[in-house]
Amino acid sequence: MGKRMSSVIIPDRAPYILSTASVVGKKEGEGPLGKGFDHVEQDAHFGQKTFEKAESFMQSKAAEMALSKALLKPCDIDIIFAGDLLNQCTASCYGLVELNRPMVGLFGACSTSAEGLAMGVMALESGFADHVLTITSSHFCTAERQFRLPLNYGGQRTPTAQWTVTGSGAFVLGNNPISKEGNVRIKAIAIGAPVDMGITDANNMGAAMAPAAIKTLTEFFTDSKTTENDFDLIVTGDLGHVGHSIVKEQIGLSGVYNDCGLMIFDRERQDVHAGASGCGCSASVLASNIITRMRAKELSSVLFTATGALMSPTSAGQGESILGIAHAIWLESV
Amino acid sequence: MGKRMSSVIIPDRAPYILSTASVVGKKEGEGPLGKGFDHVEQDAHFGQKTFEKAESFMQSKAAEMALSKALLKPCDIDIIFAGDLLNQCTASCYGLVELNRPMVGLFGACSTSAEGLAMGVMALESGFADHVLTITSSHFCTAERQFRLPLNYGGQRTPTAQWTVTGSGAFVLGNNPISKEGNVRIKAIAIGAPVDMGITDANNMGAAMAPAAIKTLTEFFTDSKTTENDFDLIVTGDLGHVGHSIVKEQIGLSGVYNDCGLMIFDRERQDVHAGASGCGCSASVLASNIITRMRAKELSSVLFTATGALMSPTSAGQGESILGIAHAIWLESV
Repeated sequence: MGKRMSSVIIPDRAPYILSTASVVGKKEGEGPLGKGFDHVEQDAHFGQKTFEKAESFMQSKAAEMALSKALLKPCDIDIIFAGDLLNQCTASCYGLVELNRPMVGLFGACSTSAEGLAMGVMALESGFADHVLTITSSHFCTAERQFRLPLNYGGQRTPTAQWTVTGSGAFVLGNNPISKEGNVRIKAIAIGAPVDMGITDANNMGAAMAPAAIKTLTEFFTDSKTTENDFDLIVTGDLGHVGHSIVKEQIGLSGVYNDCGLMIFDRERQDVHAGASGCGCSASVLASNIITRMRAKELSSVLFTATGALMSPTSAGQGESILGIAHAIWLESV
Repeated sequence: MGKRMSSVIIPDRAPYILSTASVVGKKEGEGPLGKGFDHVEQDAHFGQKTFEKAESFMQSKAAEMALSKALLKPCDIDIIFAGDLLNQCTASCYGLVELNRPMVGLFGACSTSAEGLAMGVMALESGFADHVLTITSSHFCTAERQFRLPLNYGGQRTPTAQWTVTGSGAFVLGNNPISKEGNVRIKAIAIGAPVDMGITDANNMGAAMAPAAIKTLTEFFTDSKTTENDFDLIVTGDLGHVGHSIVKEQIGLSGVYNDCGLMIFDRERQDVHAGASGCGCSASVLASNIITRMRAKELSSVLFTATGALMSPTSAGQGESILGIAHAIWLESV
């Protein structure tokens, strides 16, 4: 049975990340981490009729690849935890229906990658599941249509704006590793609370999410009695340049701290302004670059903290502030 | 540690429903179950500026009442599981932010009431939480605006259409009861898989959700080695008249089978066509009428199966079929 130290939960049996898979779009494939993704698609439609179907396709492809790498079939998965940015989790529901497995839909905006991993750990620890699949995605074109302006409008982007990643990241978790070496376990998790700091600028998500990241990280350090020295990498989900700077300065973190939203694109060359965002950002970076470096023992202790901006077009239109949330996952290579 | 019998999960320590609270609108208060709700509000706006804020207000009020009845403070809640029908779970995020507690956002359309209870059981069984709050809501006016036509349009409703309940239901779960008698425990859960039967009529949600209810219920009976004789009440979430008839006939259930969408309104007198729907439908009926009858030992074994239609305005606009999902919760009075 898991132990709780205030905000930090330590599973009795730290589960293994049996496999991961990442599927991304062309622009992500051209970025600094491009070679590490499992599949880079050149067509923004992924061969589908709509961008929403393209996002569903990404999820089904990532799920298929992660299952295959874990040497499992869909029927071996006891629970799927899935979510995305779209209204009513459209990408996940339609992308995964053919797996025909028990599914728990999640919503945590861009924090969903960590939310899913946390739920996966809980499912394994409770004995309710032996294998879980956690998956999330985002697509630049579906997100722009949903949260901002239609692409055809050609709206000007502000310097604080972030570029939604077209990508999906899938993870299969289980209690027993499939190989003897190069394994990654989840040592602890922390589920964050929503934070309202009164930010209302939908083009400055980094600033809206930074307070939640600060809250979750500082509580994690205190409750787990750790400092940044206990980690080779502390990485937030998609704060981008603005949010990353705020968190770095406020907590006083050193070069060990990075952000998936700064890692996936070359900000200068790829014209993404403040960096990247989206459920697929942290999910695809963790599922590729970070886990690969952990399996190779280049990184041994990583604090992955996915961040989400809990807002909707309706709440934005009604002048509500943008709530932030952040969930932390402590990973170790064994 | 929980036991799994295929689709059915039996927690080692069946958790208690420590308290429930239900907050509903005027029409629900005028229905057959009206006197059983904790709070009936006459103003559709609940004193707020927008219907979305009204829905958030319902959740915060239901949460407050459930906590108070369980003799707990917000800080005693280890994890909140919450979700609703709105884009990006707006009602839950804004309604619960002030509790300042770790929160997991869920999306299961109208199945969210059972999804939350299932996650709550998992959190307690894993030891990750000692107390959880599960909550969901829907509001007629926010749902119409989001999924169908603006109210001002005055669109004609079809005979198969259902009326979205304005209501919220909250549940506090824990491992130790607060009173010696009249307790309700969760004996087993079953997490459903999305089902696609090709239904595309957004005015016939009952038909879209019925196949998922049939799948979850028949698998539940098989895997738990039960029949309808093991239950005083088998109740689906919000199938309404059409879906209820399909399920009753297909499975061959008797009068022990009812539907929250048929219980909450008087179909003839209240002009709700096929019945009620919405996250708040099954949640508020379970949190009031059903749990009260269980505490009074009028009902001793109940199979609560909340049903959801996984669709969005975007998916409907793109001609996608409506996926159904159903999660089952086996409750017993002790």
